[in-house]
Amino acid sequence: MEIKKQEDVYRLILLGESTQGEEKMEWIIRVNMSNQKIAKESVPKDYHLLGGRGLIGAILNHEVKGSCHPLSENNKLIFAPGLLAGTNIPCSGRLSVGSKSPLTYGVKESNVGGGFAHKCARLGIKAILIEGKPPKGKLYLLFISKNEIKLEEVPSLTQLGNYDTDAALLKQYGGNVAIASIGPAGEKLFSASSVAISDQEGRPTRHAARGGLGAVMGSKGIKAIVLDDSGCNLVKPKNPESYKVVLNHFIDYLEKDPAIQSRSKYGTPEGIWHAMEAGYLPTRNFSSGRFEQGNHLDPDAILKLAEERGGYMTACMPGCIIKCSHVFNDRNKNFLTASLEYETLSMLGANLGIGDLDTIATMDRTCDDVGIDTIEMGGTLGILTETEFLRLGDGERALQLLNEIREGTLLGRILGQGVVVTGRVFGVDRIPAIKGQGIPAYDPRNRKTMGITLATSALGADHTAAWYVTGDTVEEQIQDSRRKQIRFSLMDTLGMCLFTRIMLLDSLDFMVGFFNSVCGITLHEKDLLRIGESVLKQEREFNEKAGFGPSSDNVPDFFREEPCPPTNNVYDVPEEGLRKTLSF
Amino acid sequence: MEIKKQEDVYRLILLGESTQGEEKMEWIIRVNMSNQKIAKESVPKDYHLLGGRGLIGAILNHEVKGSCHPLSENNKLIFAPGLLAGTNIPCSGRLSVGSKSPLTYGVKESNVGGGFAHKCARLGIKAILIEGKPPKGKLYLLFISKNEIKLEEVPSLTQLGNYDTDAALLKQYGGNVAIASIGPAGEKLFSASSVAISDQEGRPTRHAARGGLGAVMGSKGIKAIVLDDSGCNLVKPKNPESYKVVLNHFIDYLEKDPAIQSRSKYGTPEGIWHAMEAGYLPTRNFSSGRFEQGNHLDPDAILKLAEERGGYMTACMPGCIIKCSHVFNDRNKNFLTASLEYETLSMLGANLGIGDLDTIATMDRTCDDVGIDTIEMGGTLGILTETEFLRLGDGERALQLLNEIREGTLLGRILGQGVVVTGRVFGVDRIPAIKGQGIPAYDPRNRKTMGITLATSALGADHTAAWYVTGDTVEEQIQDSRRKQIRFSLMDTLGMCLFTRIMLLDSLDFMVGFFNSVCGITLHEKDLLRIGESVLKQEREFNEKAGFGPSSDNVPDFFREEPCPPTNNVYDVPEEGLRKTLSF
Repeated sequence: MEIKKQEDVYRLILLGESTQGEEKMEWIIRVNMSNQKIAKESVPKDYHLLGGRGLIGAILNHEVKGSCHPLSENNKLIFAPGLLAGTNIPCSGRLSVGSKSPLTYGVKESNVGGGFAHKCARLGIKAILIEGKPPKGKLYLLFISKNEIKLEEVPSLTQLGNYDTDAALLKQYGGNVAIASIGPAGEKLFSASSVAISDQEGRPTRHAARGGLGAVMGSKGIKAIVLDDSGCNLVKPKNPESYKVVLNHFIDYLEKDPAIQSRSKYGTPEGIWHAMEAGYLPTRNFSSGRFEQGNHLDPDAILKLAEERGGYMTACMPGCIIKCSHVFNDRNKNFLTASLEYETLSMLGANLGIGDLDTIATMDRTCDDVGIDTIEMGGTLGILTETEFLRLGDGERALQLLNEIREGTLLGRILGQGVVVTGRVFGVDRIPAIKGQGIPAYDPRNRKTMGITLATSALGADHTAAWYVTGDTVEEQIQDSRRKQIRFSLMDTLGMCLFTRIMLLDSLDFMVGFFNSVCGITLHEKDLLRIGESVLKQEREFNEKAGFGPSSDNVPDFFREEPCPPTNNVYDVPEEGLRKTLSF
Repeated sequence: MEIKKQEDVYRLILLGESTQGEEKMEWIIRVNMSNQKIAKESVPKDYHLLGGRGLIGAILNHEVKGSCHPLSENNKLIFAPGLLAGTNIPCSGRLSVGSKSPLTYGVKESNVGGGFAHKCARLGIKAILIEGKPPKGKLYLLFISKNEIKLEEVPSLTQLGNYDTDAALLKQYGGNVAIASIGPAGEKLFSASSVAISDQEGRPTRHAARGGLGAVMGSKGIKAIVLDDSGCNLVKPKNPESYKVVLNHFIDYLEKDPAIQSRSKYGTPEGIWHAMEAGYLPTRNFSSGRFEQGNHLDPDAILKLAEERGGYMTACMPGCIIKCSHVFNDRNKNFLTASLEYETLSMLGANLGIGDLDTIATMDRTCDDVGIDTIEMGGTLGILTETEFLRLGDGERALQLLNEIREGTLLGRILGQGVVVTGRVFGVDRIPAIKGQGIPAYDPRNRKTMGITLATSALGADHTAAWYVTGDTVEEQIQDSRRKQIRFSLMDTLGMCLFTRIMLLDSLDFMVGFFNSVCGITLHEKDLLRIGESVLKQEREFNEKAGFGPSSDNVPDFFREEPCPPTNNVYDVPEEGLRKTLSF
């Protein structure tokens, strides 16, 4: 079947038509925490051609009231692997975690690596939906294997850090599991808390960090989900011949792309170079875009130090051939963290005036263990430097404060709510947040194209909604942000890692090829783009139901007024341009 | 000139045409706190036929960016007496204080009695605009008399309670002044803080309490505004003959209305009877609508106790002949408070499970002194009863907590932000707030018509946006809420006390008569209603620019789900009905 009109692709999505081969046997696992009942449901046809982020937007719109309180029994927490998960396509194992966000009060999809998505898909699971709410104080674990789905109470894991949690669960369930867990921050319902996903070594270094989804999981009384896919197979493409052709070309491309080679060598910290040069590295609470101690964060220096201590580059998820994660050991060559990303270095480093790599790495490890978003924390502690509670550059104190979040002291409780609430409590009027979410490591004044994305994404200030945005004029940049956001939402729906690049930059041939061969369908590039567009529409629709209006697509005023060194630019994309970027 | 078409009335508003008599000499006083410069500006013609609430909406839309941070130098704090202020019309001296709210992040007009509005108008002042921001730590007083307008630094008043502040200022400036001041809560920028207005005895018992305007005043570094109208005259009507006729009829009406007589006898506490009977008295954190200890709050019991202790009924503002305020003394017959209103009794009493009148009166006095909204505090402490920090019924602890707000402890800082932030910090999912503002003393489940107003007012959950709403069907109630909100916004624009009733219930003859005779113009009832409608439009327009969408007109989900004893009603006005109530 060939898709020629917009109606056709919507019909396909609605009816879940498949033009050849057998339907994959897939299920939605629905866990009602009010009565601890688990249902294994067949997948409604509307959802057949959706996965990951796109499936989350659709489910939220169909099942969750826009007006619900994010921590109430009416909200739902959704785990959805991308449409290509479970296959052996490299970098295809991204997981989407979604819900109404307790941080933004709008739609949230948070994207993460680790082994969870592949195992989920190989277990035949299209999505896990957690709904309802258990009696107060009850804490559960959800275990899913080929033959068993069960909830069990796990009081012994109460308030355990993610590292101890994963260690305990690996001991109990063996090595062939993937774990989603929350730390003390999620259990305490802090709205900056994350959902940790275990990496290939079974450590909680990957995080669906943004939007406070850990608090939703905490409100459902779920400490961890453990997936064991023993006895399950790779997901097979419906059209293996064309699949094989596309796959070989794709691997070939990945191995030859020099940008990917650089990413493989340095990981995301290589972003420091660009940010320092262009001057968009958030520094000292967004007061500058270039950090004097930036050389401490230099990608070469990080690589050298990591290697000296026995560190190495590793893949965040099985099947990835980019391997952009640093395993970073401490002075004694003991493992410290494996997620020292650009955003963490920027927000917990430069933005707090902290240049010491070991301090930043320890803060990163602490955030992962407590289960809280490093980006939101960087913004939050940045705001705190306007008070007597933290001085710029005081890494020791910053670490203490992260542990106050763990302990749930009053100050920790405040900080655990992120940028906006911390600003409220301390009467700060310079708030680097959009739609309630802290702005990540790209100062919009010196990366204006990113500002368009941050301002307009329904997910709140989220750099993963689209980068690579270009254009000679503001008008072109707005158009390109829209184009890229459509492509990025499509990638998040397929579950492809954004670092594979080509699908975002050039033709969608790989995306079309994988989509068609895995699903057994014949769609064209324009059809896929329509799917991407429909994902963004769904997200905006949910936000409208949650009370957002068009003017919520904006950057905070201070970016338009305070010049940002070293360029002394202010942000100048007109508000009207932002409002129309994603109007459909 | 007769007004026949909608265009005509807008043209009049826009051009400020006056059909007879001289223009009043009126000024806008603009105080720029960034450089401490004061300008006395003539009133733009657009504003001639506006005052109070209507003028605030217009100024905010013309001069303040919807996206600004409420505590930033870009926000403005506006004091605007109603259009009839300064005359000798009984009950015409209501003051509107307005700004972008640090509580709701939307438009805010907060309405208050006291002597400020009359003096303002008699000084020839249409509005006082405070803008900009002084250096951190500076605290000023603004003094205005017939011959002098000046700012002076007042470091000695730093963190003083409103009672001590008023006493010190009366000592310095003498008895013929009206004072607007903030307490420690406003200075600390707490978003539930109020602006206190001195009563006729020079005590800070009247509050522009809602929406956190005290924090805006604090952010401007203004501790107090002192007005001395010595040497100024009554504002004279342009058409004294017709004015006199209307005035005599009006006084006659006020003196004969039995409902007003009852209000004069019991004050607003008489609302307790209706609330207990219908079951909408918020009780124990909005878990019931009828309070078992309600007899302690019985209006007859309050009256008896007040009189035994030498209390009496008094007028909140000069020229009021209703006199609905209780002067309530303590056990030793010393003055305690003069603003023991229905809303305070409900929210600090029943909603916290506290039935002891002296405890509630002391809490009221403390809130007035600290400068914080009693309604928001009742909702906030109600939420806190879901934590280990407060037990229901523990008045002693509740008083301690109000003093923690005064001191600015971490817990006090949290509570000082009101219902929504307190809910966030403690992970509570049952949040009685609309558009960021705590719901006042009318449980929507058993007073559904009030629910329509609370859900739809651009001001957030605000009972003064319209009551008296009736209708046999939901559709009729929605229409009537709209009708009443138009009339109420008109009353707030004229500066008339809502308790004069007749203008809200029956014909607008008095409003038309006063409007025309004071302004020297000939408008008709429908013209005034169009002005009222335009006030609501302006407010909604500002909220749209601030990022609100149509679905923000709603009640929290739990009111639709949890039955409210004693009726066990849930709230059932459809969301679509709420969204259309104020669509224009």
